[in-house]
Amino acid sequence: MDRSFSARAADGSPKNERVAVEEPLQITLDGCPIAVVMRTPGHDLDLVRGFLVTEGILPSLTGIRRIDDEAVPNHLRVFLSDEAAFDPTRLQRHLFSASSCGICGKASIDRIVADFPPIPHPPRFPPSALLQAPDRLRAAQTTFATTGGLHGVGLFEASGSLLACREDIGRHNAVDKLIGHALAHELPLAESFLLVSGRVSFEIMQKALGARIPLVAAISAPSSLAIEFAQASGQSLVGFLRPPRFNVYAGELRD
Amino acid sequence: MDRSFSARAADGSPKNERVAVEEPLQITLDGCPIAVVMRTPGHDLDLVRGFLVTEGILPSLTGIRRIDDEAVPNHLRVFLSDEAAFDPTRLQRHLFSASSCGICGKASIDRIVADFPPIPHPPRFPPSALLQAPDRLRAAQTTFATTGGLHGVGLFEASGSLLACREDIGRHNAVDKLIGHALAHELPLAESFLLVSGRVSFEIMQKALGARIPLVAAISAPSSLAIEFAQASGQSLVGFLRPPRFNVYAGELRD
Repeated sequence: MDRSFSARAADGSPKNERVAVEEPLQITLDGCPIAVVMRTPGHDLDLVRGFLVTEGILPSLTGIRRIDDEAVPNHLRVFLSDEAAFDPTRLQRHLFSASSCGICGKASIDRIVADFPPIPHPPRFPPSALLQAPDRLRAAQTTFATTGGLHGVGLFEASGSLLACREDIGRHNAVDKLIGHALAHELPLAESFLLVSGRVSFEIMQKALGARIPLVAAISAPSSLAIEFAQASGQSLVGFLRPPRFNVYAGELRD
Repeated sequence: MDRSFSARAADGSPKNERVAVEEPLQITLDGCPIAVVMRTPGHDLDLVRGFLVTEGILPSLTGIRRIDDEAVPNHLRVFLSDEAAFDPTRLQRHLFSASSCGICGKASIDRIVADFPPIPHPPRFPPSALLQAPDRLRAAQTTFATTGGLHGVGLFEASGSLLACREDIGRHNAVDKLIGHALAHELPLAESFLLVSGRVSFEIMQKALGARIPLVAAISAPSSLAIEFAQASGQSLVGFLRPPRFNVYAGELRD
């Protein structure tokens, strides 16, 4: 989603520029405010579904009774079924905010891996599937081409087919939108890999683990903690995926 | 700061890769935990100084009595003087966490601009100073060259001279480190401009406003909310600064 703004070029001439939209979205759970995310509007229901699972707030979507996105603009109200397993202490991690990181109080890999068990026998993906993925993701990123302002993420099968992709001004939001969509449509997350258009940090790995995605690939660099996380979680991690090259930082590909 | 990891190339050959370090840093204020940020270690005291001011938690550094960074690794304990104006309600914004955004409950531009008054008569910078800045920032970014994994930000005088630069795995952290350094050394923030190596979102504008920086330039795209924020705050906003081109989205440059 983008919007046109008046701008001026270096020579002072006026021009119109299309810019990626950033707006706050407040999420409440049974009336309790749990997060405000700055996101690009669109696929908001997927965003909240993904967020609740990848942050470990809900174990699955089955506990969600209803999501109301109409009462107040930029406000999603999630209501749980009476039986839903909702652990309010999981919200406490959100009581530590984080400027710039998104980790918000999740203090250690150990804690995360305790929330989300490691992946014991991750499938091995063929290098050919990885090498095709960047072109396929780029072709599917529609708003980025216009604005240069969005992160893109794609979910791919072992064959290299693109199952779905999402864009957002925030890379964690793009991951949550994709995962929320995949969960709602029962896409085979545990047999797929994720490709992110930029760098891969600790929290991207954590969100992927929350969705049981066994391999994360990135066009750009991983962080040290992303690598250490992957080593602990059993996930595979591929960085600098720039065909014909890439680096494998954790896990194994198919021989 | 970077660290070496074993990796394998696409052909399976082993290699060593230098990776930007990401580690959590917990910040407490008079014993009260206020944030966990995922940052690249180094310049941590600058980071916390900048964070406290740009988030509106402290009006200036004068209230800080002592910062203890030695008792516990990755834990900075800030102690205030008895007279320091510390408004605990400002922390409440942090009680809404945000995955991926860093805004953490700051729900509207109005609220921010109420915390940080607009800049009434921003200085006008010459286009020549802007056009020199990207090369100067790149030359100063030492770890990025090794790892490809860090965001860089620079503070520049109207003459185009680079006053200081900082790098971090998180772009908001890089801004906070730079601003914390500038505050501690009384650099002329109100007569300088900020250049960020990537995109510019709402929160970058807000942090710059908290430090009274009148112009923010970015190598890449602005978000819609960054533009709207600059229009409300009186700041100037320049995007896609790729010499000889750039776009002015808000404010005026020198004729």
